[in-house]
Amino acid sequence: MVKVAVLGATGYAGTELVRLLADHPGVELVFLSSESQAGSKFSQVHPQFEGLVDTRLQSLQVEAIPEGVKVVFCALPHGRSAPVVPGLLQRGFKVIDLSADFRLHPPALYPRWYGWEHPAPGLLRSSVYGLPEINASAVSRARLVANPGCFPTGAILPLAPLAAERLVDWDSVIIDAKTGVSGAGRTPRPGFHFPDCSDNFKAYRVGNHQHTPEIEQELGRLAGGEVARVTFVPHLVPMIRGILSTVYVKMPGRSLEGLYDLYEDFYRDSIFVRVCRERLPETRLVRGSNYCDLALRVDERAGRLIIISCIDNLIKGASGQAVQNMNLMFGYLQEEGLTQVSF
Amino acid sequence: MVKVAVLGATGYAGTELVRLLADHPGVELVFLSSESQAGSKFSQVHPQFEGLVDTRLQSLQVEAIPEGVKVVFCALPHGRSAPVVPGLLQRGFKVIDLSADFRLHPPALYPRWYGWEHPAPGLLRSSVYGLPEINASAVSRARLVANPGCFPTGAILPLAPLAAERLVDWDSVIIDAKTGVSGAGRTPRPGFHFPDCSDNFKAYRVGNHQHTPEIEQELGRLAGGEVARVTFVPHLVPMIRGILSTVYVKMPGRSLEGLYDLYEDFYRDSIFVRVCRERLPETRLVRGSNYCDLALRVDERAGRLIIISCIDNLIKGASGQAVQNMNLMFGYLQEEGLTQVSF
Amino acid sequence: MVKVAVLGATGYAGTELVRLLADHPGVELVFLSSESQAGSKFSQVHPQFEGLVDTRLQSLQVEAIPEGVKVVFCALPHGRSAPVVPGLLQRGFKVIDLSADFRLHPPALYPRWYGWEHPAPGLLRSSVYGLPEINASAVSRARLVANPGCFPTGAILPLAPLAAERLVDWDSVIIDAKTGVSGAGRTPRPGFHFPDCSDNFKAYRVGNHQHTPEIEQELGRLAGGEVARVTFVPHLVPMIRGILSTVYVKMPGRSLEGLYDLYEDFYRDSIFVRVCRERLPETRLVRGSNYCDLALRVDERAGRLIIISCIDNLIKGASGQAVQNMNLMFGYLQEEGLTQVSF
Amino acid sequence: MVKVAVLGATGYAGTELVRLLADHPGVELVFLSSESQAGSKFSQVHPQFEGLVDTRLQSLQVEAIPEGVKVVFCALPHGRSAPVVPGLLQRGFKVIDLSADFRLHPPALYPRWYGWEHPAPGLLRSSVYGLPEINASAVSRARLVANPGCFPTGAILPLAPLAAERLVDWDSVIIDAKTGVSGAGRTPRPGFHFPDCSDNFKAYRVGNHQHTPEIEQELGRLAGGEVARVTFVPHLVPMIRGILSTVYVKMPGRSLEGLYDLYEDFYRDSIFVRVCRERLPETRLVRGSNYCDLALRVDERAGRLIIISCIDNLIKGASGQAVQNMNLMFGYLQEEGLTQVSF
Repeated sequence: MVKVAVLGATGYAGTELVRLLADHPGVELVFLSSESQAGSKFSQVHPQFEGLVDTRLQSLQVEAIPEGVKVVFCALPHGRSAPVVPGLLQRGFKVIDLSADFRLHPPALYPRWYGWEHPAPGLLRSSVYGLPEINASAVSRARLVANPGCFPTGAILPLAPLAAERLVDWDSVIIDAKTGVSGAGRTPRPGFHFPDCSDNFKAYRVGNHQHTPEIEQELGRLAGGEVARVTFVPHLVPMIRGILSTVYVKMPGRSLEGLYDLYEDFYRDSIFVRVCRERLPETRLVRGSNYCDLALRVDERAGRLIIISCIDNLIKGASGQAVQNMNLMFGYLQEEGLTQVSF
Repeated sequence: MVKVAVLGATGYAGTELVRLLADHPGVELVFLSSESQAGSKFSQVHPQFEGLVDTRLQSLQVEAIPEGVKVVFCALPHGRSAPVVPGLLQRGFKVIDLSADFRLHPPALYPRWYGWEHPAPGLLRSSVYGLPEINASAVSRARLVANPGCFPTGAILPLAPLAAERLVDWDSVIIDAKTGVSGAGRTPRPGFHFPDCSDNFKAYRVGNHQHTPEIEQELGRLAGGEVARVTFVPHLVPMIRGILSTVYVKMPGRSLEGLYDLYEDFYRDSIFVRVCRERLPETRLVRGSNYCDLALRVDERAGRLIIISCIDNLIKGASGQAVQNMNLMFGYLQEEGLTQVSF
Repeated sequence: MVKVAVLGATGYAGTELVRLLADHPGVELVFLSSESQAGSKFSQVHPQFEGLVDTRLQSLQVEAIPEGVKVVFCALPHGRSAPVVPGLLQRGFKVIDLSADFRLHPPALYPRWYGWEHPAPGLLRSSVYGLPEINASAVSRARLVANPGCFPTGAILPLAPLAAERLVDWDSVIIDAKTGVSGAGRTPRPGFHFPDCSDNFKAYRVGNHQHTPEIEQELGRLAGGEVARVTFVPHLVPMIRGILSTVYVKMPGRSLEGLYDLYEDFYRDSIFVRVCRERLPETRLVRGSNYCDLALRVDERAGRLIIISCIDNLIKGASGQAVQNMNLMFGYLQEEGLTQVSF
Repeated sequence: MVKVAVLGATGYAGTELVRLLADHPGVELVFLSSESQAGSKFSQVHPQFEGLVDTRLQSLQVEAIPEGVKVVFCALPHGRSAPVVPGLLQRGFKVIDLSADFRLHPPALYPRWYGWEHPAPGLLRSSVYGLPEINASAVSRARLVANPGCFPTGAILPLAPLAAERLVDWDSVIIDAKTGVSGAGRTPRPGFHFPDCSDNFKAYRVGNHQHTPEIEQELGRLAGGEVARVTFVPHLVPMIRGILSTVYVKMPGRSLEGLYDLYEDFYRDSIFVRVCRERLPETRLVRGSNYCDLALRVDERAGRLIIISCIDNLIKGASGQAVQNMNLMFGYLQEEGLTQVSF
């Protein structure tokens, strides 16, 4: 039984973590923190947990985390993890951080893309990017896992097999991504107010979203050090969950059949990637599950490959992936606690 | 007072036509047909028109259209207009056809993209593509107007100023389009059944949508005969109305400022195109209106221009545009009957 | 041309007022105020009005309203109108107030239901309840019109014909009301955040909503001074607009046919009430329009009459009704500027 | 390991059954039928089950069900179970029928409310109404369980404690129910077509819904044979899942506190009923779970008790309840396979 703490337990990602971990046969939830709701029970904030998770929420103090905890999940807002994680590691906890704070290796990227200086740049070298499909063995040995962003997960998985074979023309890559509204977090803001958000569709942060360097870093690494470059444009869909990414890339010199073989081979051991030959992915088919569905199509006339990927932004794009990483770190089956089928 | 007939009045486009025409100060609605609902009142099929449009629906017989009618709107399904339009023209009516049946000039494109031989290929030469922003004077003299498709409207307007200046690298053009569900028409089908369509997002007809040649034909013509080529991928958004298109093209050798000047100049007389310098378009801001909103952004790192366009698929993408064409054909102000603000 | 001012122009009701008034042939919009957005153009806050209403928003100072204004619409939050209206009347403006501040006659009801002492109790005697279907002649002579609430409009109209005939058993009246989310206003709050509000349904303020005394006051007045009493329970529907009310009342000693005749007779001159004999009302059929649709059904086994009413909460439930009142006050046709059909 | 068959496996209720049963530790799924999709794999019809439930769908022939099956779930349309169930029982299978075909005891109710003569009236005496909260011991011994309808589940549970104490004034009971669209089944029809169903709210079958006699039968039985009578009005909410029922009844001669005690006592052993003292139920808080949430409120002025109940129509209202019944019939813990928390 692995004793576990969750920091930032009441946000969307934190809540999904609690839901998955509460049902995980190898986990005991022993500490939940919330900055805004400390003192309340978790089930008072999220009544669907009444009688199931009535743990009292605590304020975030590293020293309050009980001895015996083996791993701490940080589901804090971006920029709030970096100051906390060093203390967690010093106390000997393994850490799975769901924020962006330990994903980028060059410290200089933080001021540029996130607007703040990194307070613990030394840790950026040792953190492991927690995308199990491309990084399983490093994750299994890691003390600090940087859990990928939702958009990067949906963008890297469809391109990874090509990148690993150095088949990508980096001048040609466009990632047109569409996300459900839970991706924006649990704080009410005008753009996510039901009457203005429902029955509406829009693009945002066109061409300068902060997830871009994360995507490029990991794809470049997969491609053996090539300088990866992508155009990334996110859009907001009036749905609760899900990310569908439409990825455009110059057709590599292979047939569609050959590419499908490549993808199936690359993901042979990846239980959570489904390469779809017949059907096209839809977000509802992965809702609530840890799957990433992928399909390939060719625009022959334009010489272009089109890859469609689908994930649940809160599961494979955040909390499910974090649990998958934990499973690797503690020797559980990768799918332990993650077998829920979408509905 | 122009006397008007609408064929196929009970579908989504037909109903919007009736709504707009019933409120148009220069129009008298004298004949409405419906294949499935002949014999009923229009307001029995669409009760929001009770007391306003109680006209009895007739079956589609060309000879039943009264003398004195000046223009016939065909809002019939694709493939159903082509057999009817020759008879309408013989009776001396002007025709505005909302189907795809007279949009493509080479007859050979119909078997390839639509799956049927064109029964009146001779008319394809004389039909006028009814996109007023690029074709106003031809429309004003036309007897047969082929009203553009909703996707082509949202795809051509963002590219037209570049095409007209021959600034487009046709190897680089991608149109990633997202449409509301009314674009699929009024017939219930599994993919549009609320429980499977709500809270869901998907791509469809990836890279082979039948609107592709229409887009290429008109952009090529604008570019003085260049062979235009685009990758076009449509997606389905869980909203009722609206199309947002994200258009990617290699950055022409101009500054963003210069491009904005070019767009404003090109659309100086186009009352229904709003070139947005500050804000990004959202479908709700054009819902129910005849506007097309456009914004330009640059991905400097990738050398790529990104153009966002938004229309209401049933108004500027269908019925509003048809009324705009009628206004041109009969000497009304282009915006007559089309000044409704979105809500 | 009636010169008009709108206070609180950027909230949902204010924005709808501006939209309707901008298109009204007898109105000139000369003053718009906004507490939070003063200094911006109206069209910067609501870009769908670009080029149409670019008026600069002003802060709310009574003395800044230009001479020549004939009527001021107050679309301020509840409790904010009461301190302002006396000054407006002193300057000689007619006032149509969309808040609840002048709807209840006994001043004592304000502390009990709204939580504040009324600052101008003397005006409560002279304000006219602006429901044109029951109060047209008083409205036409009024200087201060208290525009009804959205729920009261949807609750009074289905019961008014019975009340006027004293056919209501007041022990039996239940109003189960369901509203779209725009009824909660434009300020983002957790209960209206898209991910928590979409795909969800709930009741709120069960049995103690502040609209209850307004409903009872007007129904009692219609019933010639009977003490009206209703159970009122509102619910939140994941839709943008619309209120549907299901009203239960003990079957009066009349046949359904007789009751339909009574309703048609009562509303003979009420252009905006549609008594539906065949169909049941749906909110989409009144969306964006000023109609109230009504239908009657009988549960024979239980001896109960069930009345369904539907309105658009922002039009007939707020801004459309305010314009209708203005039309009465200035001698326009009641439907002037209000003929938009739902879509 | 209980071997199980599901007839009608591809409809919404059948699919949820398969999802729950596939994850149930004591169940082996050995036979799935589908009238329309026989020959396909289950996972071809519902791709979210790829790699998880690839069972081939069979046509519905009783003799094709393998020996060794212990229980057959019938998730067939209303009227299709009655002809099949006798043969299933003859083969010695226990049967849990999700249709209405064995819920009503007097055969004469079928022609009146469903429009057909019952082909196996003898079984109506021996079938057990499968609402475990009021009928657990009979269910545990039953050979034929009539699984309750979704509306009756949401209507009986909020009234059962009052009925059992004979505290209900049957002249006063109104059940105003609101359901998500999945309640209408998986077949596309105009009223459930996304563009007409989204952003819309309506009532239907007002006062004569076929679930009424089922509600009255079970409440009457609970009340020791009183003649129960309710007014039942269903409404359609633009959401996928969930039923919220607002139940009105004359205040019994007890305090609210006393009533809460009564409810908590009545449901002391009912793990899936949550009596909520503080919060009001919302459908999202039971989505995907087998819970029924209940809250009580009083309208003091009108002397009326208002009870709010919430269920997921496909889980507690159909498939989850069926699994709960199976657990009782085979000696499993009632909650086995049903512990999923809503999300």
